[in-house]
Amino acid sequence: MKNLHIYNTLGRKKEKFEPINPPNVGMYVCGPTVYGDGHLGHARAAITFDVVYRYLKFLGYKVRYVSNITDVGHLENDADSGEDKIQKKARLEEVEPMEVVQYYTNRYHENMRSLNVLRPNIEPHASGHIPEQIELVEKLLEKGYAYESNGSVYFDVLKYNKDHKYGVLSGRKVEDLYETTRELDGQKEKRNSFDFALWKKADEKHLMRWNSNWSKGYPGWHLECSAMGQKYLGEKFDIHGGGLDLQFPHHESEIAQSVAAYGKEPVKYWMHNNLITINGQKMSKSLNNFITLYELFSGQSELLEKEYSPMTVRFFILQAHYRSPLDFSNDALLASEKGFKRLMTALNTLEKIKTDEKSTVDVLTIKNTAFEALNDDFNTPILISHLFDAVKLINSIESGKESISSKDLLILKDFMNGIIYEVLGLINEENDSNTELTDDLIKMVLNFRLEAKKNKDFATSDLIRDKLAELGVIVKDKKDGFDWELKK
Amino acid sequence: MKNLHIYNTLGRKKEKFEPINPPNVGMYVCGPTVYGDGHLGHARAAITFDVVYRYLKFLGYKVRYVSNITDVGHLENDADSGEDKIQKKARLEEVEPMEVVQYYTNRYHENMRSLNVLRPNIEPHASGHIPEQIELVEKLLEKGYAYESNGSVYFDVLKYNKDHKYGVLSGRKVEDLYETTRELDGQKEKRNSFDFALWKKADEKHLMRWNSNWSKGYPGWHLECSAMGQKYLGEKFDIHGGGLDLQFPHHESEIAQSVAAYGKEPVKYWMHNNLITINGQKMSKSLNNFITLYELFSGQSELLEKEYSPMTVRFFILQAHYRSPLDFSNDALLASEKGFKRLMTALNTLEKIKTDEKSTVDVLTIKNTAFEALNDDFNTPILISHLFDAVKLINSIESGKESISSKDLLILKDFMNGIIYEVLGLINEENDSNTELTDDLIKMVLNFRLEAKKNKDFATSDLIRDKLAELGVIVKDKKDGFDWELKK
Repeated sequence: MKNLHIYNTLGRKKEKFEPINPPNVGMYVCGPTVYGDGHLGHARAAITFDVVYRYLKFLGYKVRYVSNITDVGHLENDADSGEDKIQKKARLEEVEPMEVVQYYTNRYHENMRSLNVLRPNIEPHASGHIPEQIELVEKLLEKGYAYESNGSVYFDVLKYNKDHKYGVLSGRKVEDLYETTRELDGQKEKRNSFDFALWKKADEKHLMRWNSNWSKGYPGWHLECSAMGQKYLGEKFDIHGGGLDLQFPHHESEIAQSVAAYGKEPVKYWMHNNLITINGQKMSKSLNNFITLYELFSGQSELLEKEYSPMTVRFFILQAHYRSPLDFSNDALLASEKGFKRLMTALNTLEKIKTDEKSTVDVLTIKNTAFEALNDDFNTPILISHLFDAVKLINSIESGKESISSKDLLILKDFMNGIIYEVLGLINEENDSNTELTDDLIKMVLNFRLEAKKNKDFATSDLIRDKLAELGVIVKDKKDGFDWELKK
Repeated sequence: MKNLHIYNTLGRKKEKFEPINPPNVGMYVCGPTVYGDGHLGHARAAITFDVVYRYLKFLGYKVRYVSNITDVGHLENDADSGEDKIQKKARLEEVEPMEVVQYYTNRYHENMRSLNVLRPNIEPHASGHIPEQIELVEKLLEKGYAYESNGSVYFDVLKYNKDHKYGVLSGRKVEDLYETTRELDGQKEKRNSFDFALWKKADEKHLMRWNSNWSKGYPGWHLECSAMGQKYLGEKFDIHGGGLDLQFPHHESEIAQSVAAYGKEPVKYWMHNNLITINGQKMSKSLNNFITLYELFSGQSELLEKEYSPMTVRFFILQAHYRSPLDFSNDALLASEKGFKRLMTALNTLEKIKTDEKSTVDVLTIKNTAFEALNDDFNTPILISHLFDAVKLINSIESGKESISSKDLLILKDFMNGIIYEVLGLINEENDSNTELTDDLIKMVLNFRLEAKKNKDFATSDLIRDKLAELGVIVKDKKDGFDWELKK
């Protein structure tokens, strides 16, 4: 069963997954910078690596999953200029930066709970690991890969490139960086524009600053992940994930920092999820096409025709492979909503179907091909297409066109529930709100209707059916009684 | 309206609440040490200060509420000996200490969500504020109120007592401490047994340790609250809360640290909630009478006759004044469950009652006496007795014995909803699960029943009533139709 292959950005090819110290797996994923509400991009990264985490555990690995909360040091422009994102928000809202952090962290967690994303084993905050980051800067200075300039400390990319190879992850070459890097504030302190900050000196107006040997200041953005990854997972660990936008410069810098400090590549498998576009356009504040998760779940946005449930959003994201771009549109979401509903209806049907002596269906092939898809770099869209094969099969058995043995039914149930609930992390939202009482009331009403039909009182029988339909309860008459489902 | 009086442990009397910098209020409350599941004691502290926070906001104050998570430095014995509680749990479970912290912090938050406890504005972690704590130790050494001994740093209580008065909060005198302090490990380094650790040297086996000028080690337990309170609320702030068990030595030490470092009393109003006993006995691990909140909500404990809903637990806690001891027993919880249900039923009735030209009831007196109770050091049991006066009044109006004008009804609704939902933070749990669909289905069934009655088909009418009763829907016939409620 353990035949998992992962596409490693480092080397750009699929590799068999073999953890460094089985059955333990160490996994680090870049979490949000908490100065605003989470959007579809956050959901995609979180759900992608949630499925990785869930499947590794499903396979029996003992996973330590670390995902950080960036609450200091992430500047508006990636190239060490502009204001700290959280500091700026705090200034605009006239509150203490940590209030901004707490507020948006809580809301992020609420979104993740709605999306049924499991909480990582450790969620370290950048501001909570200042000593660890200062120690790493000291180490880099000691080894000669960093220099102090005017109270700030920068990583010396040229020096590093001479001893090691810079750009192993992104494929970028130092030579090319000369031309592409724009001139920005605070760049004069650097030897080269592509050097990046390890420690930034901060003036008195800056509320988030700590003492160091160089200045009162704060750590550079790339530093936290190297320091916290090493602290909680060791100098070399198995998987590092994040969005494609983080590949350069963030992850490239992480590698350079770790190689320079500890003398080894920090990560065996680098994984990157692709980005989300909105109706074909890049998501950006200037285009005003940001859709937050709260807006998605409530429908409160001009870009939305209606609200979409968290599970619709989760299913939508899983219907694309994590390395492919994914375009948001109302049509796509509506299609996912419909598909998800079909899947959930089939799962309900699966609980009710009757077994025969013999199977006319091939359950094992579906199961095996489904796992092949998962093992092929978490190919969830192919996996889901196999789940829909199972849906067809379930419906055929239910309508009597095919039959299934009790042994095969057990396999099928086990497989479907395991994949859908445990690995893909989907939840049947309708079952959630259908309390027992609702079920009982509907059955009660339908029994009255059955009684009316027996008495040839078709007027009452039809009335009940119509009234139920008004409430969204669709009645299906059957030979031996009735069945019903909720329409939304 | 702003006539709030608070019992100040510092001085042991009720004082008018006058914030230092109105309308701002700074409030710090000691949070949990996250090495195990929260129990009734945690719920009592959290709910007590949640109501303080809610009422201050209700009064229009702009509150910054800080409550810490203790994740390092809290030793098994309060007198600086024994193992770090989290380190020990991590060792027993063979995980990284921060995994223990994350796990129990998540579970604590889940409990708080169930209890409808609002999240504080900032929830700082002790391990996330090591530089701030080290700075405070340096300041105390500099001012001569601390001494280094064998890599650890201790607070010099005798020296402090000479310059300031030690024991202002607890009323304990240094002279008396000589006799009561037991001899424990690690006490030899101290000048006096009642000196307390600011920094503890840690051996290599200790996973949670940081560099300092004195040793690789970790901060003393009392230090975090002084450092984080000062960081987020300033050198002097309005309210500091916590359980009565924290008064000494924890809060006494906090005062000594802050006075020694900053030269002023850190807190204007000290508030302490009293403790919980279980069937008359102290809650303790050795007596095996701990009940966790998860156990309470699920009924999974030998000490419990049944499960109690989060709102029953919340109501139970609010029915005692926070400064009184509170004894848990099944009988007491059952009584609270019943009382809470009566209150919620009255709130539902309130939405349906009809107004008259004139009131025969005195709404304003109930409202005024209720607020008097709240303003009298948050006297929630007296407040709740006034709410039950309102319940009687509501039921009298509904049964036609009394009448209410539309103006008075508005006042009453506004008052009841404001106090019950906003200030006391209660939630109508039944309304929660009664989805719209359930309501619609019941109404539909009852309309069929009305039709049957009109047609003198009493057999059907009775059948429907009985079937609904089986499902827990109690039908009340009225002149002009019907009413119903859910029985649990």
